[in-house]
Amino acid sequence: MSTTAAQPDAVFRAGDESYVIGIDYGTLSGRAVVVRVSDGAELGSATLDYPHAVMDTTLAATGAALPPEWALQVPRDYVAVLKSAVPAAVAAAGIDPARVIGVGTDFTACTMVPVLADGTPLCELPEYAGRPHAYVKLWKHHSAQSQADRINDLAAERGEGWLPRYGGLISSEWEFAKGLELLEEDPELYNRMDHWVEAADWIVWQLTGSYVRNACTAGYKGILQDGAYPDEDFLAALNPAFAQFANEKVAHEIGRLGDAAGRLSAEAAAWTGLPEGIAVAVGNVDAHVTGPAAQAVQPGQMVAIMGTSTCHVMNSDHLTEVPGMCGVVDGGIVAGLFGYEAGQSGVGDIFAWYVNNQVPARYFTEAEAAGLSVHQYLTELIKDQPIGGHGLVALDWHSGNRSVLVDHELSGLVVGTTLTTRTEEIYRALLEATAFGTRVIVETFNASGVPVTEFIVAGGLLKNAFLMQAYSDILRLPISTIASEQGPALGSAIHAAAAAGAYPDVRAAGQAMGKLNKNVYTPNEKSSAAYDKLFAEYSLLHDYFGRGTNNVMHRLKALKREAAATTGASA
Amino acid sequence: MSTTAAQPDAVFRAGDESYVIGIDYGTLSGRAVVVRVSDGAELGSATLDYPHAVMDTTLAATGAALPPEWALQVPRDYVAVLKSAVPAAVAAAGIDPARVIGVGTDFTACTMVPVLADGTPLCELPEYAGRPHAYVKLWKHHSAQSQADRINDLAAERGEGWLPRYGGLISSEWEFAKGLELLEEDPELYNRMDHWVEAADWIVWQLTGSYVRNACTAGYKGILQDGAYPDEDFLAALNPAFAQFANEKVAHEIGRLGDAAGRLSAEAAAWTGLPEGIAVAVGNVDAHVTGPAAQAVQPGQMVAIMGTSTCHVMNSDHLTEVPGMCGVVDGGIVAGLFGYEAGQSGVGDIFAWYVNNQVPARYFTEAEAAGLSVHQYLTELIKDQPIGGHGLVALDWHSGNRSVLVDHELSGLVVGTTLTTRTEEIYRALLEATAFGTRVIVETFNASGVPVTEFIVAGGLLKNAFLMQAYSDILRLPISTIASEQGPALGSAIHAAAAAGAYPDVRAAGQAMGKLNKNVYTPNEKSSAAYDKLFAEYSLLHDYFGRGTNNVMHRLKALKREAAATTGASA
Repeated sequence: MSTTAAQPDAVFRAGDESYVIGIDYGTLSGRAVVVRVSDGAELGSATLDYPHAVMDTTLAATGAALPPEWALQVPRDYVAVLKSAVPAAVAAAGIDPARVIGVGTDFTACTMVPVLADGTPLCELPEYAGRPHAYVKLWKHHSAQSQADRINDLAAERGEGWLPRYGGLISSEWEFAKGLELLEEDPELYNRMDHWVEAADWIVWQLTGSYVRNACTAGYKGILQDGAYPDEDFLAALNPAFAQFANEKVAHEIGRLGDAAGRLSAEAAAWTGLPEGIAVAVGNVDAHVTGPAAQAVQPGQMVAIMGTSTCHVMNSDHLTEVPGMCGVVDGGIVAGLFGYEAGQSGVGDIFAWYVNNQVPARYFTEAEAAGLSVHQYLTELIKDQPIGGHGLVALDWHSGNRSVLVDHELSGLVVGTTLTTRTEEIYRALLEATAFGTRVIVETFNASGVPVTEFIVAGGLLKNAFLMQAYSDILRLPISTIASEQGPALGSAIHAAAAAGAYPDVRAAGQAMGKLNKNVYTPNEKSSAAYDKLFAEYSLLHDYFGRGTNNVMHRLKALKREAAATTGASA
Repeated sequence: MSTTAAQPDAVFRAGDESYVIGIDYGTLSGRAVVVRVSDGAELGSATLDYPHAVMDTTLAATGAALPPEWALQVPRDYVAVLKSAVPAAVAAAGIDPARVIGVGTDFTACTMVPVLADGTPLCELPEYAGRPHAYVKLWKHHSAQSQADRINDLAAERGEGWLPRYGGLISSEWEFAKGLELLEEDPELYNRMDHWVEAADWIVWQLTGSYVRNACTAGYKGILQDGAYPDEDFLAALNPAFAQFANEKVAHEIGRLGDAAGRLSAEAAAWTGLPEGIAVAVGNVDAHVTGPAAQAVQPGQMVAIMGTSTCHVMNSDHLTEVPGMCGVVDGGIVAGLFGYEAGQSGVGDIFAWYVNNQVPARYFTEAEAAGLSVHQYLTELIKDQPIGGHGLVALDWHSGNRSVLVDHELSGLVVGTTLTTRTEEIYRALLEATAFGTRVIVETFNASGVPVTEFIVAGGLLKNAFLMQAYSDILRLPISTIASEQGPALGSAIHAAAAAGAYPDVRAAGQAMGKLNKNVYTPNEKSSAAYDKLFAEYSLLHDYFGRGTNNVMHRLKALKREAAATTGASA
């Protein structure tokens, strides 16, 4: 665990300030930040890497191999963050914990926990510790594609009204696809499960002792539209045993974003060292809390949270249908506006995969000698190459494509390699590919009547100035960046402040506590024109491999699964 | 330089045996082997790495950057092999050099030397030492594609009779494309040049003091068909200054394979320590000398020399047209049969590029611990994965495609990568891609009425048993392997024995001196069927990217050249 103490700009007046805690649950770690309510100053933080990280090849409890595309987590790891990172952040901030008035959380989504009526995860029952389906299914658990396909086909056939709210396709990552997979692959566990709970809500349940379902994930991941879930007839047509899924496993009281879900329980107060009874905000999603943290909740302001994956959120005052978007939810980001969401399921993850699996030792040695990370060093090596100088185009689908194709059976591609292609050239092609993927999303929003006028970046990747300039050039948009290194945690703290009643609503809290650097990058027309040529190639390949002309990626994944089934290996 | 002494099976009877020297000039080194005439026993060998290796990024003399796709060599490096490797091999063999009766050579092709009338390479004139075009253009110098395109377009338009003899397309690697590039990019050097000489013939010129042009390269690389070169009208239509190219720079006395080109000169005798006046065989090409070395000169026996690239040679008793073959030449391999040639321009080169540029340190560490090369270790890691288990397909065009597409503007591709794809999985996909590329060639021969009935492998890659089994499965053919680790050098020695009159012809010499292990690998039907599915994907991508549906690879190379031109960099 690592902790940081910050020196706020404003004078710190001990005794008359109040504080909130924002906790951001990411893919690999949880981070707690102590934030001053008056101005959003971040006073201290601490991070805990989840002890079990992501289980994507073997189940930790037994060592058994997991099938391809699986990604599990252990829920007790989330509680460990409460016990260690929260008190550590308070200690690092040097504040009196008695002056903390609220806690807010955000989580990856759609990340699902199968639980009993009292919130106990099934994997914590001794008899189920060896059953993979008893564990948390992380957002990037991608093996429910066949279930998602059936849901989509049936919804399209029946003309379900909710389908266009999700760009015409729901994702294999979401509650219904993962739920149907659970039913069909481990019906005993499905029947034993009382609630199918977003981790975002499960953690709030741990904090307060009661289950409140947040409006954000219920809308974006749970197909709750205009107050209703997909109906029994629809679900029964998928699988008769699935008919009561929404009624029995999913439906629950909905909490509005920025409201209090409840009060900190005595048990959670003991874990965290915070005062019992303070406000705990309704659960939320990492991307969605970041808008207020970046003071970016106006229509046309697209906020991209760029980390392992990228999530794009944008508000609008009207409801429309954007093909391939993840969803539009009334009040999904802030109350009173329609919140649009889109995403790229692999971004920083792809760069990390490349560095871990395709970069020779000499780059690590040279990076260390230069005092740079390997990512920084590769970027330095290649940043001055003229655009197109590598002769490469890549498709950024190593983790599938969320928007606008909504297809997790897609995979990565690099074209143009020669015997003189250098390691850093392919790295740059992968960086560019993610920017081209973003451009496809922005162009789709523009064409759908909800134009993007400003691109605001939060998340770890904003540190790469070359990448940011490439995005600006490729999108032909000014890029503003959040002035916080812990945007989601700050956003969660803003929600905590609203939940505690320190501000009238999230927008007001964000205005006071959020932080933005405006137009840090602006497009260079000459570069934009050069990138246009590469984008034209990307688009051709995007449509050829992504829109059904050549479904080779689907067939290769099917062959991979067949091969894995032959041997029981996680090939 | 490394030397090896061998223990021949037969009893060595000093005093009444005679010997020949075979010298194989490869891409990176020259190897001399001492071979006993009576039975082909290889008694000693020595190898010299060319001091200047391949110049593909900068010119050694000046440090100046070279454009993309260039590959130059220094001719004095070839003479260094005569001076060092030949005497070292004789010493290693422990024979009396006075009992050597002949020398034979083979060379990469088409590798071209621009020379004065006396054979002096232009790069050895002090005033031209800094001019890239004055150097040897190695076979894999691939920057004359636009010239090759013009030659092909014009030949097709005019219905030139020689075009179908080359599968309908001549290559940018060959004499006319490289010659036209020289004229158009450095006319001063073009005009100063008296002969445009194959390195295969230049080295024989150094050995004998006289210039004889070998029938093999004249036919396969020099467009000599039915006794004539492309005519003046044709050449003038390409470029008026090119009209006399064939007459003035190329045409010369032709030597038949296996005949003596001349006698070892006093100067060359001093270099090599061999007797002055012994027979020097007509120059030849690495792949073409290997057929007799593998006792594989019957129709239907396709010999594949698998190293950095693969060359396929096969005899037939009749003349036909095979789309995309490199060429068919009467007596091109052995006198009295039509010699067919096809090729893959990148094979081992691709694996080496991958290991050098895409394999992390841990594989090197683990390979060393296991006492294996990295290639062996990667193969060990992946060889037991069920076919298709990696979910990948690659195109093996990192160095362009020689057969059957004849397009050096093509490039490499890998599709199917995910965030769990392992380094060794991509390595295997690249191995498989080269086998699929071979299958395209074999199927094209079969469909053209010159069926392939046996696949005989020579060259360094035959050591990889996994690769050989994959080729057998993918081709559904038995695979025999040459029983010599120095096939081309042995083949050159066989030609030396014929040139010296020890055997009536090359076929007889090959029967006595060549060595083959029959049917070492045979196809497994279950594996063949599994590979068929991957080959179907390869074929789709092959035709999509290789036959004009999406010319993205061409456009990316054009962008790369434009970018390099902008900065003068060898990007």
